[in-house]
Amino acid sequence: MTVSSVKTLLAGDVSPGAEVEVRGWLRSRRDSKGGFSFLAIHDGSCHPAIQAVVPGEIDNYQSEVLHLTAGCSVIVRGELVASQGKGQSVEIQAREVEVIGWVDDPESYPVAKKRHTFEYLRSVAHLRPRTNTFGAITRVRTVLANAVHRYFFERGFQWINTPLITASDCEGAGELFRVSTLDMVNPPRQDDGRIDFNEDFFGREAFLTVSGQLNAEAYCLAMSKVYTFGPTFRAENSNTSRHLAEFWMVEPEIAFANLDDDAALAEDFLRYLLNAVLEQCQEDLGFFNQFIDKTVLERLEKVAGSDFARLDYSDAVRVLEKSGKSFEYPVQWGADLQSEHERYLCEEYVGGPVIVTHYPKEIKAFYMRLNDDDRTVAAMDVLAPGIGEIIGGSQREERLDVLDRRMAEQGVHGLDWYRDLRRYGTVPHAGFGLGFERLLNYITGMENIRDAIPFPRVPRHAEF
Amino acid sequence: MTVSSVKTLLAGDVSPGAEVEVRGWLRSRRDSKGGFSFLAIHDGSCHPAIQAVVPGEIDNYQSEVLHLTAGCSVIVRGELVASQGKGQSVEIQAREVEVIGWVDDPESYPVAKKRHTFEYLRSVAHLRPRTNTFGAITRVRTVLANAVHRYFFERGFQWINTPLITASDCEGAGELFRVSTLDMVNPPRQDDGRIDFNEDFFGREAFLTVSGQLNAEAYCLAMSKVYTFGPTFRAENSNTSRHLAEFWMVEPEIAFANLDDDAALAEDFLRYLLNAVLEQCQEDLGFFNQFIDKTVLERLEKVAGSDFARLDYSDAVRVLEKSGKSFEYPVQWGADLQSEHERYLCEEYVGGPVIVTHYPKEIKAFYMRLNDDDRTVAAMDVLAPGIGEIIGGSQREERLDVLDRRMAEQGVHGLDWYRDLRRYGTVPHAGFGLGFERLLNYITGMENIRDAIPFPRVPRHAEF
Repeated sequence: MTVSSVKTLLAGDVSPGAEVEVRGWLRSRRDSKGGFSFLAIHDGSCHPAIQAVVPGEIDNYQSEVLHLTAGCSVIVRGELVASQGKGQSVEIQAREVEVIGWVDDPESYPVAKKRHTFEYLRSVAHLRPRTNTFGAITRVRTVLANAVHRYFFERGFQWINTPLITASDCEGAGELFRVSTLDMVNPPRQDDGRIDFNEDFFGREAFLTVSGQLNAEAYCLAMSKVYTFGPTFRAENSNTSRHLAEFWMVEPEIAFANLDDDAALAEDFLRYLLNAVLEQCQEDLGFFNQFIDKTVLERLEKVAGSDFARLDYSDAVRVLEKSGKSFEYPVQWGADLQSEHERYLCEEYVGGPVIVTHYPKEIKAFYMRLNDDDRTVAAMDVLAPGIGEIIGGSQREERLDVLDRRMAEQGVHGLDWYRDLRRYGTVPHAGFGLGFERLLNYITGMENIRDAIPFPRVPRHAEF
Repeated sequence: MTVSSVKTLLAGDVSPGAEVEVRGWLRSRRDSKGGFSFLAIHDGSCHPAIQAVVPGEIDNYQSEVLHLTAGCSVIVRGELVASQGKGQSVEIQAREVEVIGWVDDPESYPVAKKRHTFEYLRSVAHLRPRTNTFGAITRVRTVLANAVHRYFFERGFQWINTPLITASDCEGAGELFRVSTLDMVNPPRQDDGRIDFNEDFFGREAFLTVSGQLNAEAYCLAMSKVYTFGPTFRAENSNTSRHLAEFWMVEPEIAFANLDDDAALAEDFLRYLLNAVLEQCQEDLGFFNQFIDKTVLERLEKVAGSDFARLDYSDAVRVLEKSGKSFEYPVQWGADLQSEHERYLCEEYVGGPVIVTHYPKEIKAFYMRLNDDDRTVAAMDVLAPGIGEIIGGSQREERLDVLDRRMAEQGVHGLDWYRDLRRYGTVPHAGFGLGFERLLNYITGMENIRDAIPFPRVPRHAEF
């Protein structure tokens, strides 16, 4: 008798009549007046639990089975049989129920069957993967992450593990976490009272990175096609449903490429990811569509099957000005698009995903390539219905003289190694960043980004 | 005319006679007395460069081609033809050479063709991927990382992105990096002068994690099979060839599993990874075998084809005592095995990989399962010839009362959420950790772990 996952059994991979063993946790127990019980057992491998029918005749029926509660761990052995009930094709006619772990004080079990708010479940993040919703999020997250790697691997990209600890600040701005081993009570000081970071672990002040892009560029200009997929950090004190202090980002970078190539890659990549989850996560997406957001499936199918429109930023501003809409934030050439503007553009004006290009240089980072108009840069944002910006990217400034001017304008210093990439065999290149949890929320319909990562880090919260 | 990677052309995927375009960087230029030149062009897609034969008749031959140096970026268009020379099957008969980026002051180009020491190349880590060795390391690293994900994905494991920032210290010991946004010059203090971490970003003192294991256990006890693959940190001031302050670790965790299951998983996983690189990185491994370590291929093939022996720690100590070897460190029951002991066991005693099990409880972490002898725990180390320990793991203590006792003995506090996992449906479970860069060094024969990660972080070094 081999051990089977619940998924294997429900998928029909084992024929009825076989002796099977499943190992998992109890979702529920229901006792029949006929003197037998139904156990619903889940093991995380798929959304549904499998039903085991436990006859009253087994040895530990009175002493143990009738005391089982949600969350208990069990091993069930018996015969796989065609199910009499609706909903499932097979169930287990149990011959043996081995109780592995009880639930201490079932009345207070933090994730007992009744419905909980997502806010409450964040306070028991170590147990929430046992719930239907977070089990489903976990599976979709894994499928999505594997689709990311597969997409790039099959296309000859190298995965570059760029450093998390950095002494430079990519964006030239933004709030950072300091990484230090200095004694904070009595730190070493210079004569003027400032901290002597020469005494610190790295011999200088160090931070957690906000992006792997600059480092990825160095590898792009040797390997041609690279990507990063790793954690990044923001120390902004933003207590919103859209911000995490620690989140995962995907950042491809391609050489001999301009903004059009970048936009084409972003469109192809995003459609690939959505098709991957639509194909591989039907059951879990069906759950989200039924219980979390009834537009999920329709939305994903539409974007996965759409050509993405292209729209110049300056045209987008004109469209917004002529829209007749009263926006909360004013529309004005030179200002960044707000979420309400982005959603109008894709949801109402285009009626589908749209890539907005060529933003004013003043609102974009120093490394984005300056256009010939000297007013805009070769930046792009990919906007999707229902969420707005989902990807941001740009062609990079490959001309050393222009880069130097832009760095000076924005007060960025000390990136000699990054400048070297323009001194030695520079090539046009481009890339983008995709926030992984943001995409996962978009796919699942979950509203709070704290529910898209196992153990969220936000202001005043680093439990578990 | 489509753009082809060098790999595609050399693999024979395009027939001679086709018009082709390649984009890359010059490895070298050689001028013939016949009035034409040979360019060797690489694009990172594979180890060899492709040769382009440039006739003297093209427009920019005198003005540009004859001035090209190593590192210049070019686009070459022409006809793919069968190669006359040895070593390559095809080359490009160029009709056009477009120079994209020159090398500023070729005499001082930091990675010009001549041989460099690995130590020197670390000082130009942004350019070293352009060298043969680091291009090859990058490709092997990508293949290996993808093999890690594929192995687990195909077997139903969920990839869990455990948090990097943590308020708890997994091992109950070890030196940590503090993560903080407090002003170090004038930090908020309590009345007794200690730092008031309540004012810090997370409302408490926070650190960079040394392992995702405890968090992964929470997901294991819901999803049954999980793994982490992400960065971990050590603030030890160790300036050796084996330590990084930031490195990547793979940590699977399986439920309803004991130490035997764990050892079987480790053996199967390691063999899978070695077979994956042996199959997919033949050219790059051939390079390492020729230029870095002539035993690489033989060693990998042997381990990939071996059954791993099992050896109880207490037996291992007896073997070492009877070996007649004079070790630098004494052999004694109760002491940890040193590298010299580990290598004797696998290289001389077993003559192949060996998994040593059941170590004394005093030298192992609190979460490892106590054996019935009350002296040892269900821990294991996988030892491989040529390197010693490559994987360390254990069955976890699933009994709350024993766990509590072990935590008290080792002075571990404040892990109530971790204790909850034993209060609610506990099950026997097990896992292990594999240092990714250490394995990559083993595979490539590189000696210094700083060469196995793109931008190494070690004491006093966080450049780039």
